[in-house]
Amino acid sequence: MEESSKADQLNALCKNSLIDNLGIEFLSAVEGEVIAKMPVDVRTIQPFQILHGGASLALAETVASAGSAMLIDLSKSAVVGLEVNGNHVGSASSGFVIATASIVHQGERTHVWNVEILDEASRKIMIGRVTVMVIEKKR
Amino acid sequence: MEESSKADQLNALCKNSLIDNLGIEFLSAVEGEVIAKMPVDVRTIQPFQILHGGASLALAETVASAGSAMLIDLSKSAVVGLEVNGNHVGSASSGFVIATASIVHQGERTHVWNVEILDEASRKIMIGRVTVMVIEKKR
Amino acid sequence: MEESSKADQLNALCKNSLIDNLGIEFLSAVEGEVIAKMPVDVRTIQPFQILHGGASLALAETVASAGSAMLIDLSKSAVVGLEVNGNHVGSASSGFVIATASIVHQGERTHVWNVEILDEASRKIMIGRVTVMVIEKKR
Amino acid sequence: MEESSKADQLNALCKNSLIDNLGIEFLSAVEGEVIAKMPVDVRTIQPFQILHGGASLALAETVASAGSAMLIDLSKSAVVGLEVNGNHVGSASSGFVIATASIVHQGERTHVWNVEILDEASRKIMIGRVTVMVIEKKR
Repeated sequence: MEESSKADQLNALCKNSLIDNLGIEFLSAVEGEVIAKMPVDVRTIQPFQILHGGASLALAETVASAGSAMLIDLSKSAVVGLEVNGNHVGSASSGFVIATASIVHQGERTHVWNVEILDEASRKIMIGRVTVMVIEKKR
Repeated sequence: MEESSKADQLNALCKNSLIDNLGIEFLSAVEGEVIAKMPVDVRTIQPFQILHGGASLALAETVASAGSAMLIDLSKSAVVGLEVNGNHVGSASSGFVIATASIVHQGERTHVWNVEILDEASRKIMIGRVTVMVIEKKR
Repeated sequence: MEESSKADQLNALCKNSLIDNLGIEFLSAVEGEVIAKMPVDVRTIQPFQILHGGASLALAETVASAGSAMLIDLSKSAVVGLEVNGNHVGSASSGFVIATASIVHQGERTHVWNVEILDEASRKIMIGRVTVMVIEKKR
Repeated sequence: MEESSKADQLNALCKNSLIDNLGIEFLSAVEGEVIAKMPVDVRTIQPFQILHGGASLALAETVASAGSAMLIDLSKSAVVGLEVNGNHVGSASSGFVIATASIVHQGERTHVWNVEILDEASRKIMIGRVTVMVIEKKR
């Protein structure tokens, strides 16, 4: 219940944003792992009717950033995306894709996440990595 | 006139896609350089009201892909995004951002583009690179 | 025995090259996974006596390229490194580091490898990704 | 004279390191731009007698790190390579390659450098980017 409620909180927080606009929905959010799905439809495709690679990258940065925000005390620090990269290794033309961000390095100043995006048949769509910087808020 | 009409064609082609959904508008498209703008608004921001880094990456892949499509004979070949990366170096909270894709390598099999995204005051928002693969269509 | 002999073949092939110069030694090479070690010493350190990040990247490209070469018919095709990236997440000052390349995408035209470099205590030193292109030899 | 003496200092500092081992020589080092050359020979090639991509990445990280070290007060802070990436866009089989690191973002906490590596005929060999983190020394 803890887990689904954390995902629910993220979904509520992300109304009226790119995340909402792309139809992204958080499915699970625990320490060090965040999972979300995104529809392959008019909101996320490119002109040739398949998933736009840019939507995959936006999804990747979304799950990694949410994961980092969960690991810090947001009253004292903030997280900012520093570097994002990804290889597009498959295409999707309908249904949903599912992204899983898994932390690979949790330092004091930076977090590094691996992100894997699969389609509903578990075929790989994108493999990427997101570096997040943790910044102390100035007082 | 040639130039603006090429951008107009791209804008027409991109209706009903992610590109349209993010409010991206092509401003100029010539051989080896494509320029487009994107609004910083409810369609592209993250929950803390600034431009979502993922929107920048989607914009970057959009301008590079459009640029590559212009360089090939689309009846014989297709282009697919292979690898995309970017550093977020500034934040934007209103107005527009402008992306310029400039080709740095035009090979037979791959194109590599540098993409720079600036805000309206010409401050750097993102610096990235997109690798596009050119694939011969099977007959 | 098969496994060690493949690694031995790679070590023999790499005499008189960067790989030899950095003291890289292949430990294991099977389909889809290649493991090699590299010393942290005067050949690979930076001026402040810790492993130079560039040595890690060279090691990463080495294991991925060897892995790709094993997957193709070298009489018909060749492999070339296309894009390489990595996050340095730890430092090493003595002994050896061990790199493992694991294939995440084996396409007809490209291979994508995840590479993880650990120190002898299994602490993470680098996390990276290598994209290799497979090119048909012209006849 | 200032400029050449800065490069000379870097060359002296880098004795007995990977940088020396690869035959890298700094040619020029001014604020925001560092240039160095590297031989294409037995120290830097792969088994098929062309420049090993990993040598290019090592060279890229070398020029960017040197550039960042020049921008900070080394008694108070240190620089560490965070993320490095590059596209190999040409091959070199003899002579030298020349790398130029140009700063694209100089923040308080991070520096981002574009690095371009050319051969002696000014053909592009690699295009990359290096993110350096600036860390305050603990007292």
